[in-house]
Formats: sequence, structure tokens, C-alpha cells
Amino acid sequence: MISSKITGTGTFIPSIKKENTAFVNQHFLNEDGSVFSSDNEVIINKFKAITGIEERRYAKEDYTASDLAFFAAEKAIQDANINPEELDYIILAHNFGDVKKNTIQSDILPSLATRVKHKLGIENPNCVAYDILFGCPGWIQGVIQAQAFIKAGIAKKCLVIGAETLSRVVDKYDRDSMIYSDGAGACIVEKTEEQDSGILSHATQTFAKDEAYFLYFGKSFDKNEDKDVRYIKMYGRKIYEFALTNVPLAMKTALDKSGVSIDEVKKIFIHQANEKMDEAIIKRFFRLYKKTTPEGIMPMSIHNLGNSSVATVPTLLDLVLKGKIENQKVDKGDVIILASVGAGMNINAVVYKY
Amino acid sequence: MISSKITGTGTFIPSIKKENTAFVNQHFLNEDGSVFSSDNEVIINKFKAITGIEERRYAKEDYTASDLAFFAAEKAIQDANINPEELDYIILAHNFGDVKKNTIQSDILPSLATRVKHKLGIENPNCVAYDILFGCPGWIQGVIQAQAFIKAGIAKKCLVIGAETLSRVVDKYDRDSMIYSDGAGACIVEKTEEQDSGILSHATQTFAKDEAYFLYFGKSFDKNEDKDVRYIKMYGRKIYEFALTNVPLAMKTALDKSGVSIDEVKKIFIHQANEKMDEAIIKRFFRLYKKTTPEGIMPMSIHNLGNSSVATVPTLLDLVLKGKIENQKVDKGDVIILASVGAGMNINAVVYKY
Repeated sequence: MISSKITGTGTFIPSIKKENTAFVNQHFLNEDGSVFSSDNEVIINKFKAITGIEERRYAKEDYTASDLAFFAAEKAIQDANINPEELDYIILAHNFGDVKKNTIQSDILPSLATRVKHKLGIENPNCVAYDILFGCPGWIQGVIQAQAFIKAGIAKKCLVIGAETLSRVVDKYDRDSMIYSDGAGACIVEKTEEQDSGILSHATQTFAKDEAYFLYFGKSFDKNEDKDVRYIKMYGRKIYEFALTNVPLAMKTALDKSGVSIDEVKKIFIHQANEKMDEAIIKRFFRLYKKTTPEGIMPMSIHNLGNSSVATVPTLLDLVLKGKIENQKVDKGDVIILASVGAGMNINAVVYKY
Repeated sequence: MISSKITGTGTFIPSIKKENTAFVNQHFLNEDGSVFSSDNEVIINKFKAITGIEERRYAKEDYTASDLAFFAAEKAIQDANINPEELDYIILAHNFGDVKKNTIQSDILPSLATRVKHKLGIENPNCVAYDILFGCPGWIQGVIQAQAFIKAGIAKKCLVIGAETLSRVVDKYDRDSMIYSDGAGACIVEKTEEQDSGILSHATQTFAKDEAYFLYFGKSFDKNEDKDVRYIKMYGRKIYEFALTNVPLAMKTALDKSGVSIDEVKKIFIHQANEKMDEAIIKRFFRLYKKTTPEGIMPMSIHNLGNSSVATVPTLLDLVLKGKIENQKVDKGDVIILASVGAGMNINAVVYKY
């Protein structure tokens, strides 16, 4: 049976730290433009209690998402110890393209994958570079697409990257702006014929009936702002309930397909969207098997890195594999689950054996 | 052998016609901002002689690319006579997202594929909707990805759409603005186990070393315009030479993989970028087999529809299949080639037997 394994990972964590205290004088508004009754310290404390976020990272002014993607890609290539000219695919997941600091246009021509290929100096024209737009689950979906190309016999080695500069698309009047962060993560997916390792199974869903616009591109909460300038916006409460209902089920679909027992799952790398939400999802997932959540099963990076969309899962995986998150590791033979939820609304999960 | 066949096609041709004469008072500039020495009638006549374009179509003010995509998708679903709830994938190729008339932001959150799924009213969450950014060859690449998912066993029925509103991203001071058009085309790709029909072979390439920015997002030629507002831009001469060198070779790679003789190729549906360029590409392709171009092998729609990027090939295919292009048809058993070239720089070709 042909399958795929991850042979290298890399991440780029932007250098600019922005702590919660930096928002203390921010003028937050409600969706209808009205001023909050509580003061910012209360807002920030509540925000931290729910999301777990203490600080987030922003890219330097002269970098765009494709730069971040390139830095992460270089490290993944080095980690996998492959010749980049051997890559069959470069798959880059993002949701806003390259947005230059202090501008409002998304630059997606050419694709960001082409830009990364250009920066990597790859000459081989048979290395196909494209972008996928799939909300926060875009990087995991890129891994699933790489696996499909490998199974279909059209690829052996793929570079899959998630990169985003959400700091460039936030409405500063919206409390949710504190959630978003910049970052990039990447991995190399290679063909394997090893039995019982690599990608064991996967599941993906798109909920577009009532849920299509839970995350959307919308106007500022400040009614004096230009109505033609739009920002990342979300209905947090709806997303929370949606995710709690549907993500555990999708994870169960993937795990049941793999034939692996819930007791064998060693780690769950879930999209770093909101700590309380992630904890509740994992709790419900284990409850589906009538189990309680094992301690330490869910490594977290959200406290210091915030929510960098497509970049959170590959970044978290890289940090754990490289021993950079305290008391977290993955050993040979461990079964892990990668899972994500986001704009679309899309959900996916991959069951993987190291 | 599992393969894929196209079981339905659909297209949406926007209602607003813009003839070449509409540009006669346009203030065209060179890249450096200087004024053209020749007058507009000379420019327009030369433009028509090279590109073949007499008129192009623009979408109505209240439509965006995802609306056009939806209209084409509905027709393809009807043509294939399938229940949309049975779709496993919706793959939507574009390059600028939804751009509202008189605004400059690309709206790609959620993905346009999600918007189309929403408009189609599809409830099935296992219908996965995502966007691909791959330049003008995006729609053909979507077909190739659908085939990969079918071969990998993760899909049986896919909707593949190409939709673009290039009229919303043109620099009116740039003569190349006359090339661009709006449109959408779609098809249903289904699993088949029939021998010797459907997709026989395909080839894809990305040239990103010297070619990455032959098509790009750049400033207006009018130096008085806001430098932060960018438009679709291209180095036409470089693209012409690049395409003539590389597209025939990629088409040959695909045809040779298929095992089909050049003499059996009945039609070539090539991206409608520029008539003279397309003719030269086909001539070189046949010359690789020491043949001359058979008469009528290349249906064209560029004269009346202009270059609508990802939409040209599916639109042209639909028009010919539905008997809407004079003296052009495809019969059962005919081998055709779909081929494209565009931003990335990407090239692809599919050899298909009806």
C-alpha cells in the first residue's frame, strides 16, 4: 500500500512580539459601532482567560506571507535533507495572499507558491507550484492533497506550506484583532511503502449552508471608516458552537477509518484558535469513546504565538518534534492526530503514525 | 484502470459587451508613463490584428466572480444530470477572488468554492470546497486534481470551475487592458472504469526562475495614480516567446504519455490569450511531429469573448460541445487536447478521449 510520510518540518516565527498590554489603550467597539461598557483591562483579562493568548507575533514590515513561507520551507527542506530540485509539488495554503504593510490589497499574482519556488531557486519545471484557499485547515488539506497526488502516482515528494500575515488584515476596533498573529510552517511529504506508518487516514468536510460566512471579509466596527475597506471578521460564538459539535465527529471519522484504537493516540495537534475551545473539542472527542482526556495529549503554542491560521498546526508540530515545547515529544511508533477548523467552514483531520 | 471523464459542461458569458471602438478615446501610456506616439485607432487595429479580439464581456456591476462561477456550475450540473448533493469536491480556479465593482480589494474569505456551494444549496458536508490559484491554467489544473482524487480513491464526482472578473483589476492606462474579459466555465468530472476514454494523460509545469513575474500585480502606468493600488500587468513579449518555446513541448509530453498518435488528435482547446500566439503554438506543436496544422483543429472564441483567464478553456469546450461555434464539433471517439499557459508561469495539457 502506497502512503506518505512527513520527512521534515520547518517553521518561521516572526520576531515582533506584541503582548496583551499593548492593547490597553485600544479603542474597541461592538459590531454596531457602540463603545464597550467595560474597560480594556477587563476585556483583555477575559480574552486571555478564554483564548489563552498572552502575546502574538507580527512579521517585520518588509516581509509578506510568501517571505515567511520561504523561511519555513528552507528549514523543512534542510530537515528532510532533500534536494529541492527533486520536489514534484509546492503546495501553499493561505487566506489573504501577500499583503504589504499599510496597504489593503491582497497580492496573489503570481501564486505565493511560485514566489517560494522562485526564492528557493528551483529550476526544475516539473515541480508544480500552486496555492490552496481553504481557511485555517488549508495546511492540513495541502498534506491530504499531497497524499492524493502520491497515491495517484503523479508525485513522490511534496513541500506543503501554511503562511499567513493576519496582522495586516485586522480591524483595530474589533476585540478579535487580539487573536490574530503572523507565521509560517512547512513540511516535506514523501512517498512511502512502509506498512503501518505515515498517513493512516484522513477526513475533510465543508459546511457551507448556514456556516459559509461565519468567518468573512467585512467592514470595520468603526462606522467612520471607509466602507470599501474590509478586514477579517468572525462570529466567534457561532464558530465555537459549530466547532464543538463537528470537529470531534470529524476526528472520530478519521480515527475509525485508520483502525487505530483511541488508546493508542499519543498526541493531538489541533489548530490553535482558542484554548478553551480546543480543550472542549478534545474533551468531546474522548467522550465519544467514553474516555477522559489524557493529560498532556494536546501540546499548545497559542499562549505565545496566537492564532496564525494555516501556520499553527505545522508550527506546533515542528516545535514538538524539535523538543521546543516543555514536556512534549513524539516518539517513533506514536500515533498522532492533526486537526483543524476554520473559514469555509472547513474541518479536517489526519491520523498519522511516526 | 480508473480514470475520469467529463460528464457535463456549463458556461456563463456576461451580458455587457465592450467593443474595441469603446477604447478609442482611452488615454494609453507606456510603462514609463510616457504618451504613445501613435493614435488610438492605430493601436486598436494593431491590437486586433495580433490578439484577434474585437470585443470582450464584462460582468454586471452587482456580480462578482463567485456569482459567475455559480451560474456556470448550475449549468454543468444540469448538463451532467447529477444530484449536486453527490459531489465529493468543488474545485474553483481564479486569480483575484471576488472584487466588487469600484473597489480594489480581493475578497477570498471564505473561499469562492464555499460561496458556490452555498449558492447551490448543497448540504452534504462531505462535499469539500476549495480554491486553487494557478494562473490561467487553473481550471485545467483543477481537472487534473479531480482526476488525482478519483485515482486516489477519495472522490467520484467533482465540480471544477474557472471564474474571473479581470475587468475589475485592469489599469485603464495600459493597452493590455483591452485583452482582459470576465467569464466562467465549469464541468463535472466523474470516475470511469471505461477503457480508452476520458482523461488519457496530462502534463503540468511551473517555470519560476526567470519567469515568475512575467505576469504580476503592479502599479498603474499613470505615475499620478496611487502607488499602493495595483493591477494585472504583464510582459507580453516575454510571455509570447516563453509560450512558443514551452507550450508545444508540454503538449507533446502529454500526448506521448497517452500513446495516441498525433494524427488522431481532432481538436485542440487552447487558452484564449492571443490569437497569433495560439496559432504559433499549435504550428510548433505539429512541427514537433513534422506535420502541418490541420485546418479547423483549433476552435477560437477570443474574437468575441476576449481573454477571461481560467474561464476560456471550459467556456470554449462548452460552446463547441453545444454546437455554438460554427463548423466546430466533437464526436464520440474524438481525441482532444486541452492546453493552457499563464501566471506562475504555469503550463498544462490534458489529452482526453470523448
